[in-house]
Amino acid sequence: MPLVKAIAPPDSNYLTESFRASLPLPASLDPHFEEALRHVLDHPGSLVRPRLVFEMATAYGLTNAAAQDLAIALEYFHTASLLFDDLPCMDDALERRGVPCAHLVFGQAGAILTALALINRAYALAWRAVAASPQPLQQRALEYLEQCLGVSGLLNGQSLDLHYSMLPHTAETTARVAQGKTVSLIRLTLALPAMLGGASTREVQQIERVALFWGLAYQIVDDLKDILQGTAQSGKTSARDQLLDRPNIVAVLGVKGAVRRLMQLIRLGDRVLHSLQAQRPDLEFLARLRADLESELNRVTADSQELLDGGCSCSS
Amino acid sequence: MPLVKAIAPPDSNYLTESFRASLPLPASLDPHFEEALRHVLDHPGSLVRPRLVFEMATAYGLTNAAAQDLAIALEYFHTASLLFDDLPCMDDALERRGVPCAHLVFGQAGAILTALALINRAYALAWRAVAASPQPLQQRALEYLEQCLGVSGLLNGQSLDLHYSMLPHTAETTARVAQGKTVSLIRLTLALPAMLGGASTREVQQIERVALFWGLAYQIVDDLKDILQGTAQSGKTSARDQLLDRPNIVAVLGVKGAVRRLMQLIRLGDRVLHSLQAQRPDLEFLARLRADLESELNRVTADSQELLDGGCSCSS
Repeated sequence: MPLVKAIAPPDSNYLTESFRASLPLPASLDPHFEEALRHVLDHPGSLVRPRLVFEMATAYGLTNAAAQDLAIALEYFHTASLLFDDLPCMDDALERRGVPCAHLVFGQAGAILTALALINRAYALAWRAVAASPQPLQQRALEYLEQCLGVSGLLNGQSLDLHYSMLPHTAETTARVAQGKTVSLIRLTLALPAMLGGASTREVQQIERVALFWGLAYQIVDDLKDILQGTAQSGKTSARDQLLDRPNIVAVLGVKGAVRRLMQLIRLGDRVLHSLQAQRPDLEFLARLRADLESELNRVTADSQELLDGGCSCSS
Repeated sequence: MPLVKAIAPPDSNYLTESFRASLPLPASLDPHFEEALRHVLDHPGSLVRPRLVFEMATAYGLTNAAAQDLAIALEYFHTASLLFDDLPCMDDALERRGVPCAHLVFGQAGAILTALALINRAYALAWRAVAASPQPLQQRALEYLEQCLGVSGLLNGQSLDLHYSMLPHTAETTARVAQGKTVSLIRLTLALPAMLGGASTREVQQIERVALFWGLAYQIVDDLKDILQGTAQSGKTSARDQLLDRPNIVAVLGVKGAVRRLMQLIRLGDRVLHSLQAQRPDLEFLARLRADLESELNRVTADSQELLDGGCSCSS
């Protein structure tokens, strides 16, 4: 049962409440564990992802209840991946979603158990959403979920990311890492609801291509921000990726090259998107994500122009 | 598809091979990640648990393929929980299943990603096993899985375990921790296959009571071993509960009191087991686990006698 009555498209209050309430905490829960879970459930981030899942799912005919289950499931997986990413043995981050990282407040064990609780609940919600679809669609959807989250997807991307120092520092490697880390979750966001709604193989392929181009594009935006913010803060190009020897396409292609690649990916995405929307006008809401990508492009272009005017030490 | 032809009851070579081969590693896998996964998949432990799952499942009419999927799924969940337990922020263990802990060989991030890969695969295998059962049985089984693994089960037990220093050091608290940490997985081992085979509510309740008594009993055996044995004998880093201020019933009841409680739990289990086996003679194989518990009792009784003769520093 969804805990909140659904409206489509869901506003952010609605999703905030769903995110908070979809992991019921039993009375027998260890109070320390409860505190860590509440810290995470009360700080949901932008919720762009679950909103898109919800919209894709309802566009493809899923019920509001199934759309909500899937939206929250994928957001819980995503949140869990961030809790792990932030650990000292991974990115050693300090802040997440505007508050101190869970491991800094509740210890690493507290952060790990919280992430595992989100994962356990996410699988249950995902299964419930899948079970609401016709039987012949279920197996493929569950295999897709496994593939995107597991050793062929997200986890492999994370491992490559951590071992980047031992890999050739090329655009190919950064793209390979981004395909695992970033694209996998965007594929789930866009393609899984469509699959469960019985989208044709061709449509799923088109959606996956959009997810690929946009996923790689968002990773470049992130890479540019990492370099540009680090530069703004320190006055020189000493950003976090460089510090940790993590993949960053700007370090490989330079600022100009990375911006050029970003524009190219947006164009490639546009081509598939237009063809997709010609058949499915109800996917019009995807234009919002496209517009968001464009604003990000404009922002980083302006910032990088400033940097280039001021003299940049990056290779280009 | 099961990767190995099933025979019932499965011998340990068969299960060793299933454990190793049920997480297919893609060619695109990061070699560091692959090494960590192979380290864990090549050291499967005693496999008592998956053997029991297999026997319960086939006794309740599941196919060999579904029984194998469920057996390996639960063993992967268990193995993942050990990988997390062993981390420096939890038990800070050195050795597991006769080899150095994964985090010591592949780093904490490597151990965490390996555990997550096992979990992702375990859900996929569990789903496949559940999907092979009649539809009306599926939802209950998946809810049970979620409950035993999540904030009402294993994860809560682990959190209580870590925060034991802040809890009253009583037999009740140690039992509460054991119910989360130990009993949850034994409940899944014994009751989940029965549920999927359509066991009656009464039968499932009986099986759950056996799981409770045996789970608590095994925890006492572990607690006694922690106090009585050294690392060399138990194969894992031992005598640590006191050091880490972790729950140990021997520290609360003394050696004699703990042995007495263990005998009582075995007797309580016997009573339910006899009634259960009277209706289901094909569950005769459970006597093996009962006998194993008895040998453990005899071993710890002998060891503790020696300790008591030599003078014990524990409260009793």
